Amino acid sequence: MTKEVEVAAHHSGKDYHDPPPAPLIDAEELTKWSFYRALIAEFVATLLFLYVTVLTVIGYKSTTDPNLDADQCGGVGILGIAWAFGGMIFILVYCTAGISGGHINPAVTFGLFLARKVSLIRAIMYMVAQCLGAICGVGLVKAFQSAYYDRYGGGANTLADGYSKGTGLGAEIIGTFVLVYTVFSATDPKRNARDSHVPVLAPLPIGFAVFMVHLATIPITGTGINPARSFGAAVIYNDAKAWDDHWLFWVGPFLGAAAAAFYHQFVIRAAAAKALGSFRSNA
Amino acid sequence: MTKEVEVAAHHSGKDYHDPPPAPLIDAEELTKWSFYRALIAEFVATLLFLYVTVLTVIGYKSTTDPNLDADQCGGVGILGIAWAFGGMIFILVYCTAGISGGHINPAVTFGLFLARKVSLIRAIMYMVAQCLGAICGVGLVKAFQSAYYDRYGGGANTLADGYSKGTGLGAEIIGTFVLVYTVFSATDPKRNARDSHVPVLAPLPIGFAVFMVHLATIPITGTGINPARSFGAAVIYNDAKAWDDHWLFWVGPFLGAAAAAFYHQFVIRAAAAKALGSFRSNA
Amino acid sequence: MTKEVEVAAHHSGKDYHDPPPAPLIDAEELTKWSFYRALIAEFVATLLFLYVTVLTVIGYKSTTDPNLDADQCGGVGILGIAWAFGGMIFILVYCTAGISGGHINPAVTFGLFLARKVSLIRAIMYMVAQCLGAICGVGLVKAFQSAYYDRYGGGANTLADGYSKGTGLGAEIIGTFVLVYTVFSATDPKRNARDSHVPVLAPLPIGFAVFMVHLATIPITGTGINPARSFGAAVIYNDAKAWDDHWLFWVGPFLGAAAAAFYHQFVIRAAAAKALGSFRSNA
Amino acid sequence: MTKEVEVAAHHSGKDYHDPPPAPLIDAEELTKWSFYRALIAEFVATLLFLYVTVLTVIGYKSTTDPNLDADQCGGVGILGIAWAFGGMIFILVYCTAGISGGHINPAVTFGLFLARKVSLIRAIMYMVAQCLGAICGVGLVKAFQSAYYDRYGGGANTLADGYSKGTGLGAEIIGTFVLVYTVFSATDPKRNARDSHVPVLAPLPIGFAVFMVHLATIPITGTGINPARSFGAAVIYNDAKAWDDHWLFWVGPFLGAAAAAFYHQFVIRAAAAKALGSFRSNA
Repeated sequence: MTKEVEVAAHHSGKDYHDPPPAPLIDAEELTKWSFYRALIAEFVATLLFLYVTVLTVIGYKSTTDPNLDADQCGGVGILGIAWAFGGMIFILVYCTAGISGGHINPAVTFGLFLARKVSLIRAIMYMVAQCLGAICGVGLVKAFQSAYYDRYGGGANTLADGYSKGTGLGAEIIGTFVLVYTVFSATDPKRNARDSHVPVLAPLPIGFAVFMVHLATIPITGTGINPARSFGAAVIYNDAKAWDDHWLFWVGPFLGAAAAAFYHQFVIRAAAAKALGSFRSNA
Repeated sequence: MTKEVEVAAHHSGKDYHDPPPAPLIDAEELTKWSFYRALIAEFVATLLFLYVTVLTVIGYKSTTDPNLDADQCGGVGILGIAWAFGGMIFILVYCTAGISGGHINPAVTFGLFLARKVSLIRAIMYMVAQCLGAICGVGLVKAFQSAYYDRYGGGANTLADGYSKGTGLGAEIIGTFVLVYTVFSATDPKRNARDSHVPVLAPLPIGFAVFMVHLATIPITGTGINPARSFGAAVIYNDAKAWDDHWLFWVGPFLGAAAAAFYHQFVIRAAAAKALGSFRSNA
Repeated sequence: MTKEVEVAAHHSGKDYHDPPPAPLIDAEELTKWSFYRALIAEFVATLLFLYVTVLTVIGYKSTTDPNLDADQCGGVGILGIAWAFGGMIFILVYCTAGISGGHINPAVTFGLFLARKVSLIRAIMYMVAQCLGAICGVGLVKAFQSAYYDRYGGGANTLADGYSKGTGLGAEIIGTFVLVYTVFSATDPKRNARDSHVPVLAPLPIGFAVFMVHLATIPITGTGINPARSFGAAVIYNDAKAWDDHWLFWVGPFLGAAAAAFYHQFVIRAAAAKALGSFRSNA
Repeated sequence: MTKEVEVAAHHSGKDYHDPPPAPLIDAEELTKWSFYRALIAEFVATLLFLYVTVLTVIGYKSTTDPNLDADQCGGVGILGIAWAFGGMIFILVYCTAGISGGHINPAVTFGLFLARKVSLIRAIMYMVAQCLGAICGVGLVKAFQSAYYDRYGGGANTLADGYSKGTGLGAEIIGTFVLVYTVFSATDPKRNARDSHVPVLAPLPIGFAVFMVHLATIPITGTGINPARSFGAAVIYNDAKAWDDHWLFWVGPFLGAAAAAFYHQFVIRAAAAKALGSFRSNA
């Protein structure tokens, strides 16, 4: 919490190593098993993410439905739903970080692509794997909860009554900004070299970022901030209202991820490291 | 969250050490005190796990029973129950990891046996210790809560009304898959060598995996994913319905653990490391 | 949890390095990009902090309002609100610790200034950035929640009915003491050198300190312990009652931060290290 | 989660250092400032612990009292109270671990004394400081919440209706066993040398142990497991029923701490390390 870290860095020179930007198209990675293994890991992780979270949503609504004479306080609550989304991201990022990078979210993949951390071909293939995983995960919930799935909204993201499309879009943009900004901070090679707590804790604040955004925006959009999550639920629920609003849950997260990538690369990192090098030579 | 870790590993060669597979029967380990100490640690940990969690379940139901004129919102809630299960696994894995490996669950032991991380004799003895510990833990709850234990279902796992046996089995399989997949990811010696956050955080995501699965499947099966937990409660509660469904809580977790062991050893690890070695030599 | 750490330190001599006190006015830091980048980071972090937390407060009140025929148990609850404040501080301290020190709170900046960890000019500029960020964050909530923002109190801190000004001031002083004491403990260079868990976990207990204080004092003052948070909400809500009590939310946190700085520097650190050096020479 | 750690230890010999047992009476430590600083730290930490937790309890009861026409779901809930106790222990152990060892609980001090980790004189002085801190912390709550403190039970521990003294005593013994067992596991120098996650995470599982025990035993005794906490509330509340049951909250925690010390020193550590050395020489 002091500036001593920076000072030390000025004295000792560059103590970290920025990897070179990923190429747009990297033909070589297509020949490696690790690439396909990463796609499988993203598919499985997104499937488990949607399965657990949407099952929690449907289970909550079925156990607290006053029409079924149920106890209104008897479910896990909105707080429990927010924990389900945040907690699953925590454990899945933890499990897949070393295999695929632990994206589990097309908006995260898009942000990392813009920052040239992954190639274009990897970005596209990850998004396909994530969307297929999400569809399968929600499909499992529909199969297990056939009596309740359609009745309780299918876990689909829609704009709540009383909010404009602009508000919903804004909520998705800022929510995804919080998430992708945390991802960039947690995986910054410069910071990892200097602050020992950064890589150790990484999956936990990423999960908490998802948890926090759900607390704030469930009343507005149900909280997307993950286009695969919204897409999987829309495909399986297949409701007109969910499809009408669906563009919000791609445009908002992609704009938010782009803003976070810009903020991190140009304000926090690149400006200091390169464009304004002249400031440093004065120091 | 980038692929740089992999790249580094290709350049520097194998930087970790896979222990050899555990023998099926290891006569030597029977002569070591550490083996018996591990059995005692598993027994005590499973006892404490069941004691705290079932006491939380019974206490919740007694403080919110409308027949007793109680405040329906006055207990810890389903969210509190899910925390009890997940939080206890977090602290008990933390406490016993260095002594017994911190299984506290026959499904985890079974998965690690399939992956040849523990010998057959150790696996069987651990399961016996876990089941005895669970019986004693639930027995203590019955002794302490004699007025309420039977009235509130004894913490036993049963299939909720309106769900088929197939759904219950599926919920147990996938729930245990989430847990055992997290256990394998957290204890993978390859990953430990490369990602500093993996061993440091290990007990926390394992506990969170249990927490998450409880949020999702308490409305369906009450959440087993641990045959010792289900067995201990069934023995002490000794109710026909609990025994009728009981096979679900052994078959489901064992199938889920086997799937997770297969996924981790063949898809995530072995395929890359051995069978498809030819991919690597091209790199 | 034993005294062995201390003993080791006596044997091996001084194993850490206290940075020199920050100058009151450091003209050189004004020439560095890292100073302006830190101001931007504080502005953005405080904006996101207020946006997420006040949106959670307004969303909670709108989803549980009995006048709207809403389900009284249907929101995230006071517990969810406390999580929003604590969890956001956790992730924002994590993200900005290496950039600006992760203050996000004028009381923390004031405490660190008193301890001579930051210069006067940096302290003042941080507070300005924090207050501007807070105003923008609450402004976004008002724009997004125009139908509900004014109706549900705008997230402003006011003294609850039935509590005296002295009680409110005391609650703010002790609450801020808990937070700033945790910040000092987490960033102490002496402790970091000896206890490996201190720097690794740092952002988590700081976030938990905020969470805990909210659990305790939401019924009394709504919990300030952060003058920027109170100021941003007061400016946007602009209500007479909020302005009447507003001084409490500057005087209380600043007194609490000063007490924590005094306690840490004179009781925990400086007395042992310097003033009472004679005790040591006897050892 | 495998036995490889043990195997490695057998190959490489003793890789850790057990400190010598603390003397019963260590006159030298009385001459050091660090001893008095530790007493101050224990006093302040116990004061803050009781202040935040009892304020949370009273605030919860005042915001949900149906006699005041309050919203029954409007408080932090029993779950929030359990978080307050567990979360405060997490941050206070984190803050004081390097100063006093972070006991904040006479039962923890007693267990560490039995294991010869602290001297007799230090143990007694810590308990005095803890009890004085607890009285001051609850006194502050009474001063701040004068309208509600007595009406809502003053945060005192009493046996709930319908439970026998034996049940209450058993609940306190096992609850304290869970806590002190976690403390011993987290501070074991043998394990710290081998499992990198042990010292890093230490304060978190200790806090979670307190959280878990509160979830389970609030309906029975209100959860003591800390004689200073029970004593401070009893002194300030000064009610006949609280004093009648008060012995339970000293005898139970001390018996539980003794059992945990015995279990850790004789079963987990000493037996393996010393008494049964013959097993090792065969290995």
